[in-house]
Amino acid sequence: MLQGYTYPLSPRGEANLASAPPWHYAGDIVGVEFWTDPAAAAATLPEGLTPDPGSDGRVVALFVDWQFSAEHDEYLDPVRSQYREFMLLVDARFRGEPVSWCPYIYVDNDLAMARGWVQGFPKKLGSVHQTRVFASPGKASPSLAAGGRFGASLSAAGHTLAEARVTLEQPASDPAALFRPTVNLRHFPTLAVGQYDKPAVHELVMAEFSDQALADVWVGSGDISLFPARGEELADLAPVRTGTGFRASMSYTVTAVRLLSE
Amino acid sequence: MLQGYTYPLSPRGEANLASAPPWHYAGDIVGVEFWTDPAAAAATLPEGLTPDPGSDGRVVALFVDWQFSAEHDEYLDPVRSQYREFMLLVDARFRGEPVSWCPYIYVDNDLAMARGWVQGFPKKLGSVHQTRVFASPGKASPSLAAGGRFGASLSAAGHTLAEARVTLEQPASDPAALFRPTVNLRHFPTLAVGQYDKPAVHELVMAEFSDQALADVWVGSGDISLFPARGEELADLAPVRTGTGFRASMSYTVTAVRLLSE
Amino acid sequence: MLQGYTYPLSPRGEANLASAPPWHYAGDIVGVEFWTDPAAAAATLPEGLTPDPGSDGRVVALFVDWQFSAEHDEYLDPVRSQYREFMLLVDARFRGEPVSWCPYIYVDNDLAMARGWVQGFPKKLGSVHQTRVFASPGKASPSLAAGGRFGASLSAAGHTLAEARVTLEQPASDPAALFRPTVNLRHFPTLAVGQYDKPAVHELVMAEFSDQALADVWVGSGDISLFPARGEELADLAPVRTGTGFRASMSYTVTAVRLLSE
Amino acid sequence: MLQGYTYPLSPRGEANLASAPPWHYAGDIVGVEFWTDPAAAAATLPEGLTPDPGSDGRVVALFVDWQFSAEHDEYLDPVRSQYREFMLLVDARFRGEPVSWCPYIYVDNDLAMARGWVQGFPKKLGSVHQTRVFASPGKASPSLAAGGRFGASLSAAGHTLAEARVTLEQPASDPAALFRPTVNLRHFPTLAVGQYDKPAVHELVMAEFSDQALADVWVGSGDISLFPARGEELADLAPVRTGTGFRASMSYTVTAVRLLSE
Repeated sequence: MLQGYTYPLSPRGEANLASAPPWHYAGDIVGVEFWTDPAAAAATLPEGLTPDPGSDGRVVALFVDWQFSAEHDEYLDPVRSQYREFMLLVDARFRGEPVSWCPYIYVDNDLAMARGWVQGFPKKLGSVHQTRVFASPGKASPSLAAGGRFGASLSAAGHTLAEARVTLEQPASDPAALFRPTVNLRHFPTLAVGQYDKPAVHELVMAEFSDQALADVWVGSGDISLFPARGEELADLAPVRTGTGFRASMSYTVTAVRLLSE
Repeated sequence: MLQGYTYPLSPRGEANLASAPPWHYAGDIVGVEFWTDPAAAAATLPEGLTPDPGSDGRVVALFVDWQFSAEHDEYLDPVRSQYREFMLLVDARFRGEPVSWCPYIYVDNDLAMARGWVQGFPKKLGSVHQTRVFASPGKASPSLAAGGRFGASLSAAGHTLAEARVTLEQPASDPAALFRPTVNLRHFPTLAVGQYDKPAVHELVMAEFSDQALADVWVGSGDISLFPARGEELADLAPVRTGTGFRASMSYTVTAVRLLSE
Repeated sequence: MLQGYTYPLSPRGEANLASAPPWHYAGDIVGVEFWTDPAAAAATLPEGLTPDPGSDGRVVALFVDWQFSAEHDEYLDPVRSQYREFMLLVDARFRGEPVSWCPYIYVDNDLAMARGWVQGFPKKLGSVHQTRVFASPGKASPSLAAGGRFGASLSAAGHTLAEARVTLEQPASDPAALFRPTVNLRHFPTLAVGQYDKPAVHELVMAEFSDQALADVWVGSGDISLFPARGEELADLAPVRTGTGFRASMSYTVTAVRLLSE
Repeated sequence: MLQGYTYPLSPRGEANLASAPPWHYAGDIVGVEFWTDPAAAAATLPEGLTPDPGSDGRVVALFVDWQFSAEHDEYLDPVRSQYREFMLLVDARFRGEPVSWCPYIYVDNDLAMARGWVQGFPKKLGSVHQTRVFASPGKASPSLAAGGRFGASLSAAGHTLAEARVTLEQPASDPAALFRPTVNLRHFPTLAVGQYDKPAVHELVMAEFSDQALADVWVGSGDISLFPARGEELADLAPVRTGTGFRASMSYTVTAVRLLSE
């Protein structure tokens, strides 16, 4: 009897990329809110989601330095448990309620990719970096204080896809307002001639985060550029204007997604 | 209407890791046949496959330098189209017929990982290397000739998992005998509390390769070591004796898998 | 007239791996003090250094997450400015004074490699990771507090070379005591038959760090393993017993080294 | 007494990135000849070289898949012995004789970087790829024949720096004419305030290749683009027109460079 949750299933259940939840996360986020052409944002939405008429074309870009752990202190094995992520979250509505939708997301780690696919995050591999803060001050590091500056970037297959800058102004008065509930699409294709467009799994789900905590949330100004490249459509969401820039720490736990449709 | 075959689905259908087949492959293979403890080999088999009583514990290890193309000369973009792969193929029976089963497989490219999962190959990321032959002779390269020597290795997450050596003796008299039909398991988990062991997709399939060609197939002696590491079970299949070593070029096309069970 | 400090010199002086100092650094350190066979430690010393009779065989291993900046806020380009480092520092004496000597050091970035060679650090490429602390608490992260646990590892060419664990007990009462002045060997070979052993540059230097600061220094217990691999001699310094484990943040500036001999 | 040739020197002499020559190389080359603004080409030349009035602004770009070996069959350890390289060779004159000069060169391996610096090649790390030929035919691979097409690319720090295409027309009638003697600059900085512009080593040398062989040399048309990026000056040599494209295999041995000046 094979053991495990994701690939590869195995006799002892230790080889799988991801064992069954709970999955615990802690991370540092550099984020930029921006507005793109509303038609471009709408074009990324799956069946079941509609544009948000109250915030047409609003997108939040997140660069995250993550550390993961399952139930056995996996954070002590940082080669596997740390990863970096970039994602876009597009404002949308589900049955009238405001949600966000993630059309594009990149990570630098296969364990994160496997957990992401299972949750409905359409992860590809990319190289993601963000400026860090260090407790020991000097010219090589910003401070978590007004005027603190952060850079961030994403590349994939040797192409620069995104670059951002954030300058801090003040602690966030309402940190939770930065985020919306996120709807994802679990999708797994069929590999049979004539059925390429009839996926084996294709279902909208609501991401569920428990024990969610935010810390050290600062807001200010932000700037972001998205660059075109072969095999990518990120730049179709190029900003027409930018909003808040922010920098935060976040942690949460995932055990399930909630099925919205089948 | 979102376009594409695998993640991410998108407005123009260009961002997906893998567009729908046909998928064309060409590669160089360094391979070693070996025997492991039959109980260890049997323990890797999924429901539906049984040990092969005629070749108990026989495994073939393949290191492959691949180049991929879909229908638009993607081989001209080698960053995305080239990748390296390591896999084990364990002898088994399906309804009495001799087949092989792939319990572990590693690649260094996310496009290959996505195509693999869809076919039922349980791919993880790894770093795979094999000695190459060059047309211009000298001390830095073996020849495709008796006495030609090849090294190959696999590592993942900074751990060496496999190392092999092959020494050529003669051209293969029956190259096709090196390979068996391969059975895979398409598997995609459910992410709901209480249903972690009830995957959304879990089906045995037969790999189908069309336009298959072999060239420059040489056989000789081989040696392989499998090393234990956290998060891996490869070394549970450690060799007790080795058989043929070989080096070949191979090409084929994939358009579908054949469903064996549900 | 070509511009620049290190390779490559160029018309505008922007292409070089490292422009001329000052060079600013900030980093997080996970460190373990240990004792190896005194003869093994002594065997790594260059001419001009002698074993330290007061601390025979004492070595400090450091895993560092660094962020670098020159004079133009290069920390805003984290792809280039961040890197990770592992090094061993062996206790020694120079003209009777206690110093440390760095026989082996690994980084994951070519800019850091170039700056290192110029300073006399014998850097190779490696993959280095350490557990991080995040401001937002949870099961995926330790705290800077008694009982906080950290893991760290080094691999190179797919071989695991070092793994360490540190458990915090208390803030350090005398953080500066963790470090000694460091002596390096600037070395650049001659490429002429018969002169391979007559390097063009071969000079002992004392590292000079200005504006040095330490913060959040915690000490406790530590454990470290060094593993043998082809092309490496790290494991010749395998621990016979371990001392203090620690975790700290550090920053400093480099503008020069002090020549000790020629 | 420490052993070794390059960093790190060590008790047994096995840890160094490069042991003393001879160094043997075999590789596959995709190359494109082009002409840039003669002033831009001239601006890259070091003191001692002058523009070539007979071929003002001529540059050859080479993408190479290399395999290296010293005297102990190091090609059997492909993780360390294989690497990929991109370089530009600019036409110039040394004391009236036609030579080429390498202003920019990128590799993906630290052993190759160390050997390069010692020879005077100003190597940085980059990601280099070229289309490969496989003995087994199909849609995933070109043939070494008229009409065969090859793609190649270079990126560094997530920025695409060069992309090329070559289409074969015929075997080269005079393969050796593709290459000129290459002059390099061995350079190692001083790290002392006030002496940043007084390098410890700064000497023109002539590269020397023995046992040089070329095989399977095909010529045809080529195209190349160079892209601007922070920290790079490659695009200052952007093509104004292109010449021959070619694809070849090459092998040679290096034991020394010839000193041209001091």
